[in-house]
Amino acid sequence: MALPPDVEAAVGRIRAEVAALHQELVRSGLVVWTGGNVSGRVPGADLFVIKPSGVSYDDLTAADMILCDLDGTVIEGSEGGHRSPSSDTAAHAYVYRHMPHVGGVVHTHSTYAVAWAARGEEIPCVITAMADEFGGPIPVGPFAIIGDDSIGRGIVETLSGHRSRAVLMRNHGPFTIGKDAKDAVKAAVMVEDVARSVHISRQLGEPVPIPQEAIDRLFDRYQNVYGQSSDTRFEKTQD
Amino acid sequence: MALPPDVEAAVGRIRAEVAALHQELVRSGLVVWTGGNVSGRVPGADLFVIKPSGVSYDDLTAADMILCDLDGTVIEGSEGGHRSPSSDTAAHAYVYRHMPHVGGVVHTHSTYAVAWAARGEEIPCVITAMADEFGGPIPVGPFAIIGDDSIGRGIVETLSGHRSRAVLMRNHGPFTIGKDAKDAVKAAVMVEDVARSVHISRQLGEPVPIPQEAIDRLFDRYQNVYGQSSDTRFEKTQD
Amino acid sequence: MALPPDVEAAVGRIRAEVAALHQELVRSGLVVWTGGNVSGRVPGADLFVIKPSGVSYDDLTAADMILCDLDGTVIEGSEGGHRSPSSDTAAHAYVYRHMPHVGGVVHTHSTYAVAWAARGEEIPCVITAMADEFGGPIPVGPFAIIGDDSIGRGIVETLSGHRSRAVLMRNHGPFTIGKDAKDAVKAAVMVEDVARSVHISRQLGEPVPIPQEAIDRLFDRYQNVYGQSSDTRFEKTQD
Amino acid sequence: MALPPDVEAAVGRIRAEVAALHQELVRSGLVVWTGGNVSGRVPGADLFVIKPSGVSYDDLTAADMILCDLDGTVIEGSEGGHRSPSSDTAAHAYVYRHMPHVGGVVHTHSTYAVAWAARGEEIPCVITAMADEFGGPIPVGPFAIIGDDSIGRGIVETLSGHRSRAVLMRNHGPFTIGKDAKDAVKAAVMVEDVARSVHISRQLGEPVPIPQEAIDRLFDRYQNVYGQSSDTRFEKTQD
Repeated sequence: MALPPDVEAAVGRIRAEVAALHQELVRSGLVVWTGGNVSGRVPGADLFVIKPSGVSYDDLTAADMILCDLDGTVIEGSEGGHRSPSSDTAAHAYVYRHMPHVGGVVHTHSTYAVAWAARGEEIPCVITAMADEFGGPIPVGPFAIIGDDSIGRGIVETLSGHRSRAVLMRNHGPFTIGKDAKDAVKAAVMVEDVARSVHISRQLGEPVPIPQEAIDRLFDRYQNVYGQSSDTRFEKTQD
Repeated sequence: MALPPDVEAAVGRIRAEVAALHQELVRSGLVVWTGGNVSGRVPGADLFVIKPSGVSYDDLTAADMILCDLDGTVIEGSEGGHRSPSSDTAAHAYVYRHMPHVGGVVHTHSTYAVAWAARGEEIPCVITAMADEFGGPIPVGPFAIIGDDSIGRGIVETLSGHRSRAVLMRNHGPFTIGKDAKDAVKAAVMVEDVARSVHISRQLGEPVPIPQEAIDRLFDRYQNVYGQSSDTRFEKTQD
Repeated sequence: MALPPDVEAAVGRIRAEVAALHQELVRSGLVVWTGGNVSGRVPGADLFVIKPSGVSYDDLTAADMILCDLDGTVIEGSEGGHRSPSSDTAAHAYVYRHMPHVGGVVHTHSTYAVAWAARGEEIPCVITAMADEFGGPIPVGPFAIIGDDSIGRGIVETLSGHRSRAVLMRNHGPFTIGKDAKDAVKAAVMVEDVARSVHISRQLGEPVPIPQEAIDRLFDRYQNVYGQSSDTRFEKTQD
Repeated sequence: MALPPDVEAAVGRIRAEVAALHQELVRSGLVVWTGGNVSGRVPGADLFVIKPSGVSYDDLTAADMILCDLDGTVIEGSEGGHRSPSSDTAAHAYVYRHMPHVGGVVHTHSTYAVAWAARGEEIPCVITAMADEFGGPIPVGPFAIIGDDSIGRGIVETLSGHRSRAVLMRNHGPFTIGKDAKDAVKAAVMVEDVARSVHISRQLGEPVPIPQEAIDRLFDRYQNVYGQSSDTRFEKTQD
C-alpha cells in the first residue's frame, strides 16, 4: 500500500518517536524483559505505530515498529510489517477508534500500579502532584481477558469523561493515554510514581485527604498555566 | 576428552550464551556479589555448561564456563575445567537427568522470591501476567540441604506435571527451568517480578482472585498464540 | 540589564553549579520525569539561579538556567530568560528574601519523604545519621497551594529557629535549604535516606528512641568538628 | 616517616584495593552521598589504610586514601596525609588493635540493616544464604556515641567469639569485618541483602525457622568446602 508522501513522512517521525520512548520505560524502571508497549497515532491519517511483540528493548529500532490501521490490522508491505505487533494491539486500536483526541497509548506492568490493580482499588488523590497531573483518583477498570475488544472497551468506558489519563485494569495493570505518545509515557511514569508514594504512605497510617476544592484548583492551574509553548523540549510539568 | 566437531561447536555456542545470560541477572537486579547461576544443556549431547563458583560478574567470559556431564562431573581437559563449577551444579545436573525437555536451569536469591520462600508460602495467581507466564501459583519445594541430590530431587518433584517453570525452594530461593537457558532466565526475571507485585499488593489488603477458568484461557492463549517464529530476537511474551 | 563584571562571573559559576546539581537528583533517584528543582543564590547580589520549567534532565545546560531577582522575577535579557522558570520559583524567592543565610534551595517529590508528608507526620530522630545531619526530627509544614506566597511562607515559618534544613510540606513533598546549592542538595539526598530508613524500621515495630542528650552531642560534634577546610572536594559528613 | 620498601609496596597495594572497593559500595547501593567507609590492614605492619572524610565517591583515588597506625593516628608525610581520615577511624583502629585476624573493616548506613539497628533487633537466620555466610543471626551491638572508643569496643565485644562478621550497632548501622578489605565489603553487601530479604519476608507473616543443626551444617560446609584457591578472582561463595 502506497501512502501519500506527507503521511509517509509523519509515519517516519512517529516510528522514531515511539521507538525512542520505549527506552523511557526502561529508564524509569516500568518494565522487565520485553513487557510494556507504547503506540502513537499518525497525525492526519487513520493509522498508528506500535511495538512488535517480544523484541528485546536493546534491539528496538524505528524500522521494527509496526504500522496499523485503526482496526489494529498491520499495513501490508510497510516496514516491520512481517512481524507480529504487540499482543495488546487490539486494545490500543480500540482506544484510537473511540477517543479521537488521544494521540498516544501506553501499557506497562509497573509494580505499584499492578499492586493496586490486583486489589481492584483506585488510588486516592492525597498528594498535590497527583492533583496536578490526574485531577483526582486513578480509577480501576474491569477485569477483561485479552483476545477481543474487552480490554479496549474497559479503558474507554473508564476514562471517558474522567480527568485521569490513567486506568488500572483489574488484576492486570495500568493503561495510559495522552495527546501524543510522549504525553502517554509521562502519564505511565507518573502513575507508577503516585501509586508507589501513596502505597508507602498508607503502610504506616492513613494519608490526610486533600479537599476537593484544592484538587480542582491544582488541576485547573496545572492544565492552564504551566508550560513553554515555543520550545519543543518544554512541556506542562510540576517542576 | 575429544568431542565430535558438531558437539564441540554446540558447546562453544552454549558457553557464549550462558556467559552472556549472567549479565541479564545483574541487569535485572536478581543477584548480589557472585550469587546466582545459569546453566544450559548442550543440544545433542549429555552435557551442560554452567558458571564457575565465585567469579565476579565483571570477569565472566565464555571460556570461564564449565562443561559437565549429566552427573555434574567436570569434563577433564575442557576449557575452564581447572576451576570449580557452581556449588549448585549437582542440583542442575539432577534436573537435566530427570527432565529431558529442560534445556536451561537458573538459580538466584532474588529478594521477593526469597521472601516467599522463607515463609514457605506459594505465590497466588492474582495477576494476568502470572497466568500467562506460569499458568497458576508458583509452588514451594521442600527444605533441602546442599551437598547431595536433595535440592535437585525437590525441584523435579515439585515441577513435574506443574505448569510453573519456577519453584521456591523453602528457606532458600527460586530455581527456574526453561526450554533453553534464555527461557529459564526469563522465568527467573518474571518470578521475581510477580513475587514483588503480589507481595506489595497484599501489604494493603487481599488481591482479588482470578477465576480458574480465566487463568486457563490466559495460559492457553499465551502458550499457543504469541511469538514470532522466524526471527530469533522474537519470542513468546505479554507485550 | 547589564550586571557588574564580578556579579556576571558569579552568575556564571552558579549557573554551572546549579545545572550540574540537577544530575545529582537523578543519580540519587529523587526525581522522575522533569520533577524537582534546585536553585542557588548569587553571592554578593540579590539574585538567584533556578531551573526552567519542564526541560528534560538530559538536556539541562548552564545556559538554560534562569536568573531571577529575589521577587522571583526573571532578569530580562539574561541567558535562558526567554523561558519560564520552575513553577516553584515564588517559593524559592520567598526563602531567599526571608532567610539571608540560605544560599541554596531544593524541592523534590522523593518517594519516602512524600509518604511522610502525605500523612502529615514528622520523621522521628531514631538514627544517628539523622541526629548528625538534622539535629532532631524532620518537621512538617502546612498544606499550601501553589500560586501565591503560601508555600514559601510555610517553609520559612517551619524552618526558622529549627535545626533541620528540611521540611515536609503536607501532601506535597520535601523542601531543603543549605548554605549553598550543594548543601541543599545534600540535605535533599539525606532527608530521603532517613525518611526511607525510618519508614522501613517502623514497618516491623517501634524504633528505639535516641535520648535528647545524645542527639544534642551528635549534632554539636557534627556541626563543629568534621570537615576538610582547605580542599573544596571535602565537606562535613558522617563518613 | 620512611617505611621499609616492602611495607611501602604493601601500602600501595592496599591503597589501590581500598579505593577500588569503595566503588563496590556505590554499585551495590549501600551508600548515599559520601557516607560509608572501607579500611584495610597493611600486611606485615601495624598500619591500615582508610578513606578520607567527605570526599565524593567520583573523586576517590588510591592517593587520597589515608595511612594510619593502629591508634588511628595519621602517618605524617604519607600520601593523602594532609587530609582528615574518616570520622569512623577510631572505631576501625580499635578493631585492628583487638582483633589481629581481621584484615578489613567496613561501615555503611545501608537501608535495611539500619532499619533493624534502629529497632535494636537482631536478624534471625531464616534463609540458607545467611546460614552459609554468617552461620546464624546478625547480632546487635550497643548504642555508642562517636568520639571515643565506645563504637570500636562495642563491635569487638559483640563479634568476639561470634560466627557473624557483621554487627548492627544500635540506632546507627552495620559494621563488618573480614580477612581482608574485600571480604569485609562482601559481608557488608550480604548483610544488607539478608536484612532486606528477611524484612520483606516478615512483612506478610513469620518465616519458617531453620533448625540449628541445618544451620551448623550449612555454615561448616560453606567455610570448608567451597572456593577456588589458585585464582585470585575466585573465592568462597554460595553460587
